[in-house]
Amino acid sequence: MRALILSADNFEDTELLYPFYRLIEEGFEVDIASLKKGDLNGKNGYKVTANLSLEEVDPERYQLLILPGGKAPAVLRKEPQVLEIVKHFYHKNKVIGAICHGPQILISAGLLKDKRATAYKSVAKELKEAGANYEDAEVVVDENIITSRMPADLPFFMRTILEKIKEYAT
Amino acid sequence: MRALILSADNFEDTELLYPFYRLIEEGFEVDIASLKKGDLNGKNGYKVTANLSLEEVDPERYQLLILPGGKAPAVLRKEPQVLEIVKHFYHKNKVIGAICHGPQILISAGLLKDKRATAYKSVAKELKEAGANYEDAEVVVDENIITSRMPADLPFFMRTILEKIKEYAT
Repeated sequence: MRALILSADNFEDTELLYPFYRLIEEGFEVDIASLKKGDLNGKNGYKVTANLSLEEVDPERYQLLILPGGKAPAVLRKEPQVLEIVKHFYHKNKVIGAICHGPQILISAGLLKDKRATAYKSVAKELKEAGANYEDAEVVVDENIITSRMPADLPFFMRTILEKIKEYAT
Repeated sequence: MRALILSADNFEDTELLYPFYRLIEEGFEVDIASLKKGDLNGKNGYKVTANLSLEEVDPERYQLLILPGGKAPAVLRKEPQVLEIVKHFYHKNKVIGAICHGPQILISAGLLKDKRATAYKSVAKELKEAGANYEDAEVVVDENIITSRMPADLPFFMRTILEKIKEYAT
């Protein structure tokens, strides 16, 4: 199994690192893609390496997409290549997990209208304006889109993502 | 299942948070104990709450002990109550996971003589002086003691701990 994480500088450190390590623990190959290859700096000082640029991403290769939070999604949502990648996962019925500010990217891709979803509390208004049915819950699942609010939701976010992946794989 | 994390201020953030969230994901009840109850501040700015003081820890209640790294172990290894708790886990054949500087606590408890173990590279010398057989590997298992070197080892550290727990439980 292969997973893609889309992020950029000022990512929320644990929201990238927990899924990254968790998927490695589960035996996934995990790629991190960003505007350009190289080091990304988290808000709390952790570094990760983006091993792919957006142009190099072939979405066909992946079963799972993770969109961590922090300030990265505000940058990524403006990139047409990001929106194309996200739409590929949605329309191919592959699992998408977005946490905190990550769902902003799903809003820009036009995927949350009439969908049940959650996000960081400051994103709730924008989520509703985009036509989503906002819920204040640790994890919300609607079809292949799984959303959570914040770092403390990470155990429930990843548990649900891995259950969903297994369901889709069988 | 119930796990105990022993830490203090200046913990290595991901080395506490990854096991903490991972065990919650797995359905464990997880307690964090420190010199006193209340907020603990990680080196990278994350906060966790110690819900128990050392005096309040009843080691009989737990199946698993986690010793994260950072600068916390240098403080904890001087506390006789910490050493008593750690020895309880060892002698009752319960799983102990120590990462980075966490193995310093095992050294002070006198548990690593003639044991295979790893730790953060700056701890290697001290480990050898304590009579341990130091290995530079992502995870080392000797009886019920599981050790790792650094945050990037976390997926292998937790995978091994959870396998060991299942093995001991069956």
